[in-house]
Amino acid sequence: MESVDMLWVMLGTILVFFMHAGFSMVETGFTRSKNSLNILMKNFLTISLGAILYFVVGYGIMFGADAFGFLGTDGFMLSGVEDIGFFIFQAMFAATCATIISGAVAERVKLNSYLLLTVAMTAFIYPVVGHWVWGGGWLSELGFVDFAGSTVVHFTGAVGAIAAVMLLGARIGKYSEDGKSKVIPASNVPLGALGVFFLWFGWFGFNGGSALAADVTVVPHVISTTMLSASAAVVVSAFYSSLKYKKIDASLTLNGALGGLVGITAGTADVSLTGSIIIGFVSGIVLVEGVAFVDRNLRLDDPVGAIAVHGACGIWGTIAVGLFATEGGLFYGGGATLLGVQALGVIATFAWTFVVTLVFFGIIKAIAGVRVTEEEEISGLDFAEHGSQAYELKDIMVTSPAKQSNADSTGSSLIERLNHLHGKSAKTD
Amino acid sequence: MESVDMLWVMLGTILVFFMHAGFSMVETGFTRSKNSLNILMKNFLTISLGAILYFVVGYGIMFGADAFGFLGTDGFMLSGVEDIGFFIFQAMFAATCATIISGAVAERVKLNSYLLLTVAMTAFIYPVVGHWVWGGGWLSELGFVDFAGSTVVHFTGAVGAIAAVMLLGARIGKYSEDGKSKVIPASNVPLGALGVFFLWFGWFGFNGGSALAADVTVVPHVISTTMLSASAAVVVSAFYSSLKYKKIDASLTLNGALGGLVGITAGTADVSLTGSIIIGFVSGIVLVEGVAFVDRNLRLDDPVGAIAVHGACGIWGTIAVGLFATEGGLFYGGGATLLGVQALGVIATFAWTFVVTLVFFGIIKAIAGVRVTEEEEISGLDFAEHGSQAYELKDIMVTSPAKQSNADSTGSSLIERLNHLHGKSAKTD
Amino acid sequence: MESVDMLWVMLGTILVFFMHAGFSMVETGFTRSKNSLNILMKNFLTISLGAILYFVVGYGIMFGADAFGFLGTDGFMLSGVEDIGFFIFQAMFAATCATIISGAVAERVKLNSYLLLTVAMTAFIYPVVGHWVWGGGWLSELGFVDFAGSTVVHFTGAVGAIAAVMLLGARIGKYSEDGKSKVIPASNVPLGALGVFFLWFGWFGFNGGSALAADVTVVPHVISTTMLSASAAVVVSAFYSSLKYKKIDASLTLNGALGGLVGITAGTADVSLTGSIIIGFVSGIVLVEGVAFVDRNLRLDDPVGAIAVHGACGIWGTIAVGLFATEGGLFYGGGATLLGVQALGVIATFAWTFVVTLVFFGIIKAIAGVRVTEEEEISGLDFAEHGSQAYELKDIMVTSPAKQSNADSTGSSLIERLNHLHGKSAKTD
Repeated sequence: MESVDMLWVMLGTILVFFMHAGFSMVETGFTRSKNSLNILMKNFLTISLGAILYFVVGYGIMFGADAFGFLGTDGFMLSGVEDIGFFIFQAMFAATCATIISGAVAERVKLNSYLLLTVAMTAFIYPVVGHWVWGGGWLSELGFVDFAGSTVVHFTGAVGAIAAVMLLGARIGKYSEDGKSKVIPASNVPLGALGVFFLWFGWFGFNGGSALAADVTVVPHVISTTMLSASAAVVVSAFYSSLKYKKIDASLTLNGALGGLVGITAGTADVSLTGSIIIGFVSGIVLVEGVAFVDRNLRLDDPVGAIAVHGACGIWGTIAVGLFATEGGLFYGGGATLLGVQALGVIATFAWTFVVTLVFFGIIKAIAGVRVTEEEEISGLDFAEHGSQAYELKDIMVTSPAKQSNADSTGSSLIERLNHLHGKSAKTD
Repeated sequence: MESVDMLWVMLGTILVFFMHAGFSMVETGFTRSKNSLNILMKNFLTISLGAILYFVVGYGIMFGADAFGFLGTDGFMLSGVEDIGFFIFQAMFAATCATIISGAVAERVKLNSYLLLTVAMTAFIYPVVGHWVWGGGWLSELGFVDFAGSTVVHFTGAVGAIAAVMLLGARIGKYSEDGKSKVIPASNVPLGALGVFFLWFGWFGFNGGSALAADVTVVPHVISTTMLSASAAVVVSAFYSSLKYKKIDASLTLNGALGGLVGITAGTADVSLTGSIIIGFVSGIVLVEGVAFVDRNLRLDDPVGAIAVHGACGIWGTIAVGLFATEGGLFYGGGATLLGVQALGVIATFAWTFVVTLVFFGIIKAIAGVRVTEEEEISGLDFAEHGSQAYELKDIMVTSPAKQSNADSTGSSLIERLNHLHGKSAKTD
Repeated sequence: MESVDMLWVMLGTILVFFMHAGFSMVETGFTRSKNSLNILMKNFLTISLGAILYFVVGYGIMFGADAFGFLGTDGFMLSGVEDIGFFIFQAMFAATCATIISGAVAERVKLNSYLLLTVAMTAFIYPVVGHWVWGGGWLSELGFVDFAGSTVVHFTGAVGAIAAVMLLGARIGKYSEDGKSKVIPASNVPLGALGVFFLWFGWFGFNGGSALAADVTVVPHVISTTMLSASAAVVVSAFYSSLKYKKIDASLTLNGALGGLVGITAGTADVSLTGSIIIGFVSGIVLVEGVAFVDRNLRLDDPVGAIAVHGACGIWGTIAVGLFATEGGLFYGGGATLLGVQALGVIATFAWTFVVTLVFFGIIKAIAGVRVTEEEEISGLDFAEHGSQAYELKDIMVTSPAKQSNADSTGSSLIERLNHLHGKSAKTD
């Protein structure tokens, strides 16, 4: 292996790791602050359990010697595996798939039950799909194209989320007795926006690293299509939300960025730059409509919009390859064959992931329960599961010092702002 | 092209992208929380519109076939362009220039009018300056040196900000009737500090990537001068603010880091390590005095200090090349020729950017207005433009559980801190 | 030098720089908000002073021509140094060592006295240890193995922290009169968690970059052992804290990640993947017990757990090389020689760092004092040292607009959440 190729994949690995900071901040920011510690614990434990489980089992299932086109059968604990760099890159992907569920089940899932699902996802459910597409399994044989994982990673995660949310139910107060969907406000949107930036940033490694080499004909193209699709989706989701709801909706615009990223992930190396803008454009609309559809029609309570982002846009991105791939795409004279294979891949991934997750999480539900008690949910999971709270921002200015002589108006605006003391801020905690 | 060179430019691209997370957090942190969503939307839309506009128009204006030394004339939508990596790297720069304005106009600009200015900046105003210096235009012919864009990116953005703020006016309550500059406190300085770290981090890609190759004689030097200049500026702005205002001012110290980064950007490859420390040293003073000058003398209400950071330090950094360049600098026996060219570049960039921005934004002001209503400004742009708010940190501890048995004082300090429950925090939202 | 090797070290440099954002956020998040500005200033000044001091003095002490196996004697201001990239990479390490102290002394240290200690650490105390191990000094002659600095960077920083905290004393209110350790709550745990993610992310550059080349046989292994150790430590610290304190403790789990990272730092290139999981496993327990031991037995008031993270896990990581190194480790048939050398390195580093820090900081204490006044500590260092405060999150919804017609329940969950307005949030600041 060339040093430069190894280096690129390691950079990709590090960037995909950073996406977990992004997921954590998106989920923490878009939910209530009484559940923030719990969300953070879920995310840290997902990446951690995921890496270890994927090392012990998942990698072997995904990339081991093929059995029936269905799963791999060796390489457990990397026995006999030479390319350690490829393993660690893939381990980050496995954890990414698992953590998608984390956001959808937030604010009411029992931590230990969630962690068992994480184990199943990273050790088995995700690696099987991964084997089909990237490990030499039956979908790869059919010519299914998913360069960086619109289906393999994102849609699989979203389907797991659908099954989990169905078993879990909505948060208390989410749907009123007459069936209306109610408002549960986000606690810290700037933190959520930060998370979106992190995900976008990390996605360059997610898509770019999937080239698996520092290939000068592929990598700059992938970075560019990733950027343009996300950009188009941001613009469209902002303006489409403005048309639909009369205001540019901050949450939908932020999720629009993620939708555009999920949307381009399958075709990032195989569509043109203009194609990527169109894919992002459509992703922006799919995201806005998808959020409404999941909430109102499917009545799935997904606090962060994960199902719309990774599910709806994951489907769109996978199908879009069949339309826009410059080799084989319908709009480029390639006929409908690729389109059909792409659709088949989506359906098969849905069937597998939905059924297995439903059965597995259903068993956990029957045996141990998957939901915290009503009392715990109302008082907040941070107290219930961790005995603490996330924010304590009220200890400022314990004693109110006398007015400062330098708080007059002759200084610069910045220095004055900082010299400023509000008498009303005085507290005696 | 060598893989390793491509890889370095792609890393630079990704890091410059991340600077937009930095700008967003600086602007969100240093303004009031009633405007946070609006600021985030401005930033996400700037990078997104910027990338698309630069793809469609801007790149061609900047790097297309030269006409009269003034602008490029082909390559629109990358037609005929082979180096996609160079394009996407440059696209991040274009958006950076545009987003500098975002901070200066925060808290009172009308979103749609701002977005039109972003379109003009990334499609035309910035690419013309870019063509002069980096696209083979007249300034490059004269020998103007601006390695990574103290003038091209930062000063151009700052001049756009000056023109925009002049047309926009100060925030309500900023200047009292007797002309005194008043305090408008920052909402979240830690978030702003985070943004400064992001910018500093991304700047290694901004300056380093501008080598356009993994050149062993240039890149480590650039990383080192970037680091040392920023470091010197932090130390100096901290102590100079302490001399001037009796306390180490947090905001000025944080902006000092940015001032030192802007200051070294032009000469990062062409000055010595010691030279970079001197440039940073002076940048720290220029920043502190610049903030005061913009506020008190120019009376421009710039909520985040963008004009001082990118304008004052941008001029200084460009001029400093004429003094400290080890080849051609005045202090290295190169005479005053380079210094004169550097000054000419600053003046020309000011004239072009100021006039065109003033005319363009003036037309928008005349036709559609550039400022939200007084009522909207007072109630906050988050409500006015997005129907929502950024923070909802008051839902903690909905019901107050009974005192915890483990909240005694025998545990470790960390565990106790986390087991701690304030009775007064109990809420019944 | 090969371009690709230079590029990898520069990437490492940039990532280690980013660790300083991580330290800043960990420290800001885990302490009280009345001291947040002060903590941020300490961190920005540490990295800045550190970089400059290491350039002027520290690098020469560490890597200059050896004298008596004890310190280097030339290369000051990089005179005669050719590999600028190696310098800047090492400069980031020096600042990392110094900033470890910052967290432990937070909330009561006098800023100027702290800065003098930073100068001593980066210019002399740390470079001497660095010379012993990495600069050709006596420990390297004995065969001491510390690939990326469990001892050189982390343990040295922790020992400095121990000495500094001993001279400084505990925060007011930390220990009650009857000797019980009391709760001082964290202000912003999500920010602290963000910091942990940043550190973990940067650590890939810290450990990976220490290969000093893009070596395909070393780098992927290092990235993998780093990831697996941290992951194991997160899982173990979560469950071990749950066993010990009945709840999964968020703070200990977050610090567990850091403990696992410190633990693997010495042996990252020399232990197997399975070895790294065991090292991380033990690190998780060492961290949880270490935090309790430092607080209850040593009675050192360390607001962020830095001594346990970098000290206890630093010792464990260094010793673990003697056990798990696949070449020379006790468990791999290498006998006890390496183990003995590792232990000697820990002891020598403790002796040197403890004595010199105690003497140096003791002199500062005698002459200028090291602690703010009681009044300043109670009112908060942000006011006392910077005349300002970190957060001002109360200006939302200055006037309460009439109820919004679109705040009904027919919209999507996300849009509704954002359209939601709490009457109770209305304020008239």
